[in-house]
Amino acid sequence: MTGLAARGIFAAVLTPLDADLSPDMGRMVAHCRWLLAHGCDGLAILGTTGEANSFSVDERIAILEGAVAAGIPPEKLLPGTGACAFPDAVRLSRRALDLGMAGVLTLPPFYYKNVSEDGVFAAYAETIRRVDDPRLRMFVYHFPAMSAVPVGFDVIARLRAEFGEQVAGIKDSSGDIAFMTRLVEAFPGFSVLSGSDHELLPVLKAGGAGAITAAANIACALAAEVRDRFLAGDLEGAEAAQANLSAVRRVVSSVPAIAAMKALFARAGGDPGWERMRPPLVPLSAAQRRTFFEGLDEIGFELP
Amino acid sequence: MTGLAARGIFAAVLTPLDADLSPDMGRMVAHCRWLLAHGCDGLAILGTTGEANSFSVDERIAILEGAVAAGIPPEKLLPGTGACAFPDAVRLSRRALDLGMAGVLTLPPFYYKNVSEDGVFAAYAETIRRVDDPRLRMFVYHFPAMSAVPVGFDVIARLRAEFGEQVAGIKDSSGDIAFMTRLVEAFPGFSVLSGSDHELLPVLKAGGAGAITAAANIACALAAEVRDRFLAGDLEGAEAAQANLSAVRRVVSSVPAIAAMKALFARAGGDPGWERMRPPLVPLSAAQRRTFFEGLDEIGFELP
Repeated sequence: MTGLAARGIFAAVLTPLDADLSPDMGRMVAHCRWLLAHGCDGLAILGTTGEANSFSVDERIAILEGAVAAGIPPEKLLPGTGACAFPDAVRLSRRALDLGMAGVLTLPPFYYKNVSEDGVFAAYAETIRRVDDPRLRMFVYHFPAMSAVPVGFDVIARLRAEFGEQVAGIKDSSGDIAFMTRLVEAFPGFSVLSGSDHELLPVLKAGGAGAITAAANIACALAAEVRDRFLAGDLEGAEAAQANLSAVRRVVSSVPAIAAMKALFARAGGDPGWERMRPPLVPLSAAQRRTFFEGLDEIGFELP
Repeated sequence: MTGLAARGIFAAVLTPLDADLSPDMGRMVAHCRWLLAHGCDGLAILGTTGEANSFSVDERIAILEGAVAAGIPPEKLLPGTGACAFPDAVRLSRRALDLGMAGVLTLPPFYYKNVSEDGVFAAYAETIRRVDDPRLRMFVYHFPAMSAVPVGFDVIARLRAEFGEQVAGIKDSSGDIAFMTRLVEAFPGFSVLSGSDHELLPVLKAGGAGAITAAANIACALAAEVRDRFLAGDLEGAEAAQANLSAVRRVVSSVPAIAAMKALFARAGGDPGWERMRPPLVPLSAAQRRTFFEGLDEIGFELP
């Protein structure tokens, strides 16, 4: 891994599927290139939006290897490596490390609910110790609405104290800007990335590193505009771009978001196969598709 | 698989660990034998209580193979084969089938929340089609409090209509006896097993097949007494035994249940290693251990 902190706009990349519901590396690599060409600093492949937990560890490793073999720069990749079983998280993280990826984004184990902070700490610590490589740059993934297992301040403090910069940052999908600000202030050098599109500009203003977002799959150019205007000191312009990005996110969230973004690429490319989903997620219904496309039309959104 | 419906008392078997936190097949096989010798009709290994989702698929398959190689009768085994990724559920279910096990107990994919009934149906259907073996006897696992993904009546009706007796039954850990009764009445030949100790006698009275329970790890003899008195027509005796079983369950539930039962075997066998847990679960604290043991003393519980 590069040792650089992840900064900027990361798309939580969709995973296209073939007719057998296996990952379609052709479509996926093309999508990765398109995202990098349209404003993304990096690619968070195999996250929630990438349906990662619906793939076996072998399938996930094949995706990591396939992306790099196809020429996607590994230093642009921040793959999800979280799993309920720490041996799986270790295998995925090691492979990402060996492939030269920028870091790993790691959900806590998410089957057991109401686990103790000691348990969440132990799960991360066991994984980091067994990866056993000082080059590791792990980003913890706080997404209580989906994982139902929060990664709290005290867990992060203990991990930073024990593992230093190997615990490199956080993706916070809780939307709690006060929590993100507290992390920025408490841990110098710790990269705080919002997992919510709405909080991209707020987290940049708070000194955070950027965002890893689902809507960036389609609104990468808008997210990049927020970043560029903020970095150029044009706060008014950044606010306007953030408003546009948030409008896209609201339309995406009005229907099942992952299926919706796949439907948009299916329509844009005249490629119905793009719509396929791994169970338990399913493609949009005709009514949902209509709602989604009408919503995008209403805000005047077009793919870059 | 035997084609017989699962009936009676199944312990949701604990998984002991060695010092490296790997499954300890010596301790596990001994525990399986002890459970079969003390009233269990079968063994639901690799369920929630067995910390199954904290093990990789390879580790889970090694446990299935290890149990059978050590002489545990495969027709007594009802292993958990649920996974977030259907290729994992397929691999586990096929191996269980090839080893001659009685059936498989399959959680729905549990990462994504608020998924549609179509999605839950699709996940099961994809798994069953890909196992592609008429000998399959799958028990769906309804445990909304833990998985956060209910398996509702309509999903079961669609699965029974499409796959017949391959969808052989349910473990219902919701404790909703009205739902269990409805299933018994709607689907002749479908085995309804309570996942809650408290509902063992109620589900038997409703025409259900029995129970798969955590507390049976320590209270197997009490659960067997409920079954035996019920089958002998001694309803009053069955109610008394159920009250004793429920009392044990309440004590077990007063602390983290899995760690508690492991602590009891550690104490009983003078074997502290029995207490080990896979993160994110952790052993009991000293205070929790005291609460648990005092609670068992108060109700006069002893291991059989």
